[in-house]
Amino acid sequence: MNAVRSNDPARQERLRALNLELVFRHVLAAEAPVSRTELAAATGLTRPTITRIVEELIAGRLVTETGATPDGRAGRPRMGLTVCRSGPAGLGLDIRTEGLAACVVDLGGAVRHLAFAPFTDTEAPAVLERLGRMAAEAAEAVSAEGLTVVTATLAVPGPTDAGIVRTAPSLGWRDVDAGALLAEHLRHLDVTTNVDNEANLAARGELHRATPDHFLYISGGLDIGAGIILDRRLMRGSHGWGGELGHLTVDPDGKPCRCGSRGCLQTYASLAAILHGETLPEDLTADAALLTWADAGRPETLAALDTAATALGIAIANVLNLLDIDTVLLGGSFALLSSWLIEGVEAELAQRVLSSRWAPITVRPATLGPDAAAIGAAMAVVDLIRRDPTAWLASGR
Amino acid sequence: MNAVRSNDPARQERLRALNLELVFRHVLAAEAPVSRTELAAATGLTRPTITRIVEELIAGRLVTETGATPDGRAGRPRMGLTVCRSGPAGLGLDIRTEGLAACVVDLGGAVRHLAFAPFTDTEAPAVLERLGRMAAEAAEAVSAEGLTVVTATLAVPGPTDAGIVRTAPSLGWRDVDAGALLAEHLRHLDVTTNVDNEANLAARGELHRATPDHFLYISGGLDIGAGIILDRRLMRGSHGWGGELGHLTVDPDGKPCRCGSRGCLQTYASLAAILHGETLPEDLTADAALLTWADAGRPETLAALDTAATALGIAIANVLNLLDIDTVLLGGSFALLSSWLIEGVEAELAQRVLSSRWAPITVRPATLGPDAAAIGAAMAVVDLIRRDPTAWLASGR
Repeated sequence: MNAVRSNDPARQERLRALNLELVFRHVLAAEAPVSRTELAAATGLTRPTITRIVEELIAGRLVTETGATPDGRAGRPRMGLTVCRSGPAGLGLDIRTEGLAACVVDLGGAVRHLAFAPFTDTEAPAVLERLGRMAAEAAEAVSAEGLTVVTATLAVPGPTDAGIVRTAPSLGWRDVDAGALLAEHLRHLDVTTNVDNEANLAARGELHRATPDHFLYISGGLDIGAGIILDRRLMRGSHGWGGELGHLTVDPDGKPCRCGSRGCLQTYASLAAILHGETLPEDLTADAALLTWADAGRPETLAALDTAATALGIAIANVLNLLDIDTVLLGGSFALLSSWLIEGVEAELAQRVLSSRWAPITVRPATLGPDAAAIGAAMAVVDLIRRDPTAWLASGR
Repeated sequence: MNAVRSNDPARQERLRALNLELVFRHVLAAEAPVSRTELAAATGLTRPTITRIVEELIAGRLVTETGATPDGRAGRPRMGLTVCRSGPAGLGLDIRTEGLAACVVDLGGAVRHLAFAPFTDTEAPAVLERLGRMAAEAAEAVSAEGLTVVTATLAVPGPTDAGIVRTAPSLGWRDVDAGALLAEHLRHLDVTTNVDNEANLAARGELHRATPDHFLYISGGLDIGAGIILDRRLMRGSHGWGGELGHLTVDPDGKPCRCGSRGCLQTYASLAAILHGETLPEDLTADAALLTWADAGRPETLAALDTAATALGIAIANVLNLLDIDTVLLGGSFALLSSWLIEGVEAELAQRVLSSRWAPITVRPATLGPDAAAIGAAMAVVDLIRRDPTAWLASGR
């Protein structure tokens, strides 16, 4: 913390930045357009200060003035301020089980573009080249609506470190500098790029919806990952490699895992484990095939789902005993399969979580579905600008 | 965040509080006495402001002026300011494996009093009555040195909730309002009371020593608990019930645990589990007996320690995969037994922690020994006053 002295020009500037941030947060959080008078009342700032700040926010395309809107009282329409839906936008890129996704959200968090392409090749250079093209298409598509893509965030199924994907077993990647490859393909766009774990980004996506302050987001698929939200902040650990739920030990003498360990949750509850070597019908994805088979009451599928649910429950119980979280969101393939999993998970939690004797635990499907990571990645724009709107405005983009 | 307007009296007051806090932090963090000139240089505040703040801090017994101290240059002794060692003090009370402890630390974090009493009775009313007497003796003992006990924090072996001990299996306690009982016994002392889990408090004690920013502290004994430090903050979870490491599942089909689950870490690595039903020699504690037997190469003890180390390694691997922490401190009985445990723990971590392939993990004994929780509890005084020295001074205590 720095000392803030009166009449110090640096302090005056910091004060202006704090006030601008405060006003922008109010506009972002408001459910309906707000007037300048309401902003003055809510922030305690003077009307001239509000007027100056609103001008800055409008000029920087962060806030926009809506037309006359009814305010509930008959005959008294009014002007209001809302977050700008035709200003800076965020691009999310996602490498998921069946292919690649690109998503653009505006400053209000609304999805404005969403594209999906099945895999043709899972080698890193090919994947990043394809994502580069999808990014360009997305930026082009939304520019027609006045949006400018200013952040690009890539979601990958594995731990990352300064843009490097340390390992992504489902893709066979190891130490791939995805950040550099992506930046190379996006060099024609003036964007901030970032790479993060898909479960972390999906958890952040869910956080932007109205979820509790603390929750465990679980991403099911070829790999199993988790994003941990405590006090509405993503828990990243020392290096950002947290949330490797798929490699929690469920049975120390269990089957060998690709990671080199034994009895990892992966070996019971990944899509491959639940499919137990079954060949997929040509026209169905793994999720869809499992749903079809489960609905038809196919005994092998039901047994595999039971095994997965028990293993998942044991691993989740470990997390809850350790972190004291009481909401669990099942995402990715687990969201689709949740009606076959929740009962088995809950049975393990009731037995294994110490606090379950006196505090209830909620297990439910995540709300964003398979696009959670792409949407969470695209939402980086909101976090970037919300964190420091003054720096953003000063950048002149 | 609130708007801070110029010439607003509330803002001026906030500014004064921030500046006082800043100066106090500098004095607390300094390794040697600091002069007013050094404080002005370090904080960027003017000399008159420093003079006023130092006066307030001295009057409130937070800071004291030391005599002339040599500064390394021959013949130039100087006056310096340090944290006051005869002002407010913190009391830590701890219910541990073999008995009760009381500890007083001063504002500099130095232990000024430490007392231990073996159990005569583990029923809650008797324990809290005895702790009340130990607290009075401790406050009396340090008052002779000018110290005033202003916080009392009780460390208990189990999850707590607003002063209530939800469960402490090693004591047979369930829903004991330890906070109310303690406050009752301390009503003659003017103190802030608090109750927290012993592993949480021990982790905070270790944090006040020079440990890394992120670490997992494990408390071994009749029960096994953990304190998780991320970014130098104790991770408390939704209700403060995190860190129940003893109830992480090591083997889902393992032995029943007192908690109602099966195969908990407790059932492999608590002191009772390592003793596997052996009768203790009259004159030895459980720790001491295990050490003696292990040193003598007693096969049953060595085998039990190996089993404990493997189970501990599996549970720790789960934590590290989830939280991305790379330092593990073995505390309580595990500190004493660490030379018999570390190798087995490390073998499991090497196999089971995904990031261990590219980032080293350190497992070492904790530094504070069996008094960690009592010291960490007593250190609450430092946190209380550091958090808001102005409020503390205003309280006029």
